[in-house]
Amino acid sequence: MIKIAIAGYGNLGKGVEKAIAQNPDMELVCVFTRRDPESLKPASGVPAVALAEMEAWKDKVDVVVLCGGSATDLPKQTPQIAAMFNVIDSFDTHANIPVHFAAVDQAAKEAGKVAMISVGWDPGMFSLNRLYAESILRDGSTYTFWGKGVSQGHSDAIRRIAGVKRGIQYTVPVPEAIESVRRGENPELTTRQKHTRECFVVAEEGADKAAIENSIKTMKNYFDEYDTTVHFISEEEFEANHRTLPHGGFVMRSGVTGEGTKQLIEYSLTLGSNPEFTSCVLVAYARAIARLAAEGETGARTVFDIAPKYLSPLSDEDLRAHLL
Amino acid sequence: MIKIAIAGYGNLGKGVEKAIAQNPDMELVCVFTRRDPESLKPASGVPAVALAEMEAWKDKVDVVVLCGGSATDLPKQTPQIAAMFNVIDSFDTHANIPVHFAAVDQAAKEAGKVAMISVGWDPGMFSLNRLYAESILRDGSTYTFWGKGVSQGHSDAIRRIAGVKRGIQYTVPVPEAIESVRRGENPELTTRQKHTRECFVVAEEGADKAAIENSIKTMKNYFDEYDTTVHFISEEEFEANHRTLPHGGFVMRSGVTGEGTKQLIEYSLTLGSNPEFTSCVLVAYARAIARLAAEGETGARTVFDIAPKYLSPLSDEDLRAHLL
Repeated sequence: MIKIAIAGYGNLGKGVEKAIAQNPDMELVCVFTRRDPESLKPASGVPAVALAEMEAWKDKVDVVVLCGGSATDLPKQTPQIAAMFNVIDSFDTHANIPVHFAAVDQAAKEAGKVAMISVGWDPGMFSLNRLYAESILRDGSTYTFWGKGVSQGHSDAIRRIAGVKRGIQYTVPVPEAIESVRRGENPELTTRQKHTRECFVVAEEGADKAAIENSIKTMKNYFDEYDTTVHFISEEEFEANHRTLPHGGFVMRSGVTGEGTKQLIEYSLTLGSNPEFTSCVLVAYARAIARLAAEGETGARTVFDIAPKYLSPLSDEDLRAHLL
Repeated sequence: MIKIAIAGYGNLGKGVEKAIAQNPDMELVCVFTRRDPESLKPASGVPAVALAEMEAWKDKVDVVVLCGGSATDLPKQTPQIAAMFNVIDSFDTHANIPVHFAAVDQAAKEAGKVAMISVGWDPGMFSLNRLYAESILRDGSTYTFWGKGVSQGHSDAIRRIAGVKRGIQYTVPVPEAIESVRRGENPELTTRQKHTRECFVVAEEGADKAAIENSIKTMKNYFDEYDTTVHFISEEEFEANHRTLPHGGFVMRSGVTGEGTKQLIEYSLTLGSNPEFTSCVLVAYARAIARLAAEGETGARTVFDIAPKYLSPLSDEDLRAHLL
């Protein structure tokens, strides 16, 4: 049995707990938390442990799955905890990956641990598909489209506007752009041509809806470069239709081989729950990390470094016989 | 520069030659052939060398890409040549992969070489996607659909029928089946419900077309379990519309996480040329094999065993900065 601990019990931590239950070769040992552990009752009945007490669990855990946020939690937590445990995180601030990797690599190497960063679907499965597709089709263009799905960052931005009681934002890929890529037209697409943004807002009683809509549509870095639609809805409709976190998207590479032969590779995800899917990817790679650690490896890793066989509970022989 | 040799100069060998030209870190050294080398002039101008003389090239080649057929060539050639060179093949008789792997593994280990088998898109990229998807979504169903594309085996079978001058067969996935999978219905699909077969035939002057059509539709193992359509066309139409080898298909995994949340992973290929695409996959993995050999590894490998980073000409740092 692979012994897993979770650090952080939000949407992602709860998703990891559920994903472990789907993997009979894994066992959840405990949940590390920043909160008062007395206040936390993990659904699976495992103990909640204060983050400050985690060192006492060093010999009882094979891999810690870090479920904190990329903005402030993981840049500190991942190197710190990699000094005690094999770890895996879903760090997703693309621009800061090289710095994060270096810090985590140093901590993990010094401690003789394996530490994997940026696991999920983007970065993660989408990154893998960009790498495979670009390695195969050398002459071509790669496109990543996100959605239709909830962007938590954009939803948070809406909710900070005065007069907004509740709000959610869906990122929607532009169908014409996807079809143009599929036809092998290798379009050059602006930000506006790739995605639209659709917002559903519950306004406070008596709020100025026109002002809210204008604040959203002109918001720098979030909405100003996109075609944005704002729908004002009732709280009942919000409750009924906007309480889940679907997401997904497409990685496409359109290339040319030989004398102008068109070739297209497409990978897509249609996710009923973004955090639950990310959790499943984390848990599959936690299996890989436990194995690499058992083989004596140390240091930081990304999805690019892990041979696919390490993700599966099947033996090499079974994989060759049944999945190849 | 990675020095590549090709063994076998049919559609696949010619595709590998073109793919190498798209990879500036690779160089084609020679083409090994069973034919009289005097009769063969590779398009790139490299020498043709008799297979019997290949040992003299041992120190001039990093990887030999084997481009023979799976039925009779590769079961003998891959172990034989792995005793002298690092090799890679596209062996695609799924049921015989374990036996082929064992024979190649033994030969390569004894010789201190790396030998990769079953590289292409199925087996190959489709296998990888089955493995990744099943490792992530543990509760679910996996579906592989092929086409629309030319099945060379079925086309050959048509051409063996008396009265058939020319013939080609397209495997076509059933759209309703794909849509049902996409809706998360987890259908149980019979052979007939997954694919149809569409044949285009040029009949000999005065041939009995009804007899030809009946022979095709009732042919055991090839057509009898499918809904098959037969179109008789003129030789001109055949020349104009049926001289390329398109193919492709879909690997889909529909799964459930948490409390009944639906999740869908889909990978698809739309290939203008099946052999040219397979060649590109072979060449990307030839890069990986050259690197693994340089690291001192030996023995047989499949796509499951190779960390993705080995396929790309980019450094680990560049991959993390630009593709993750």
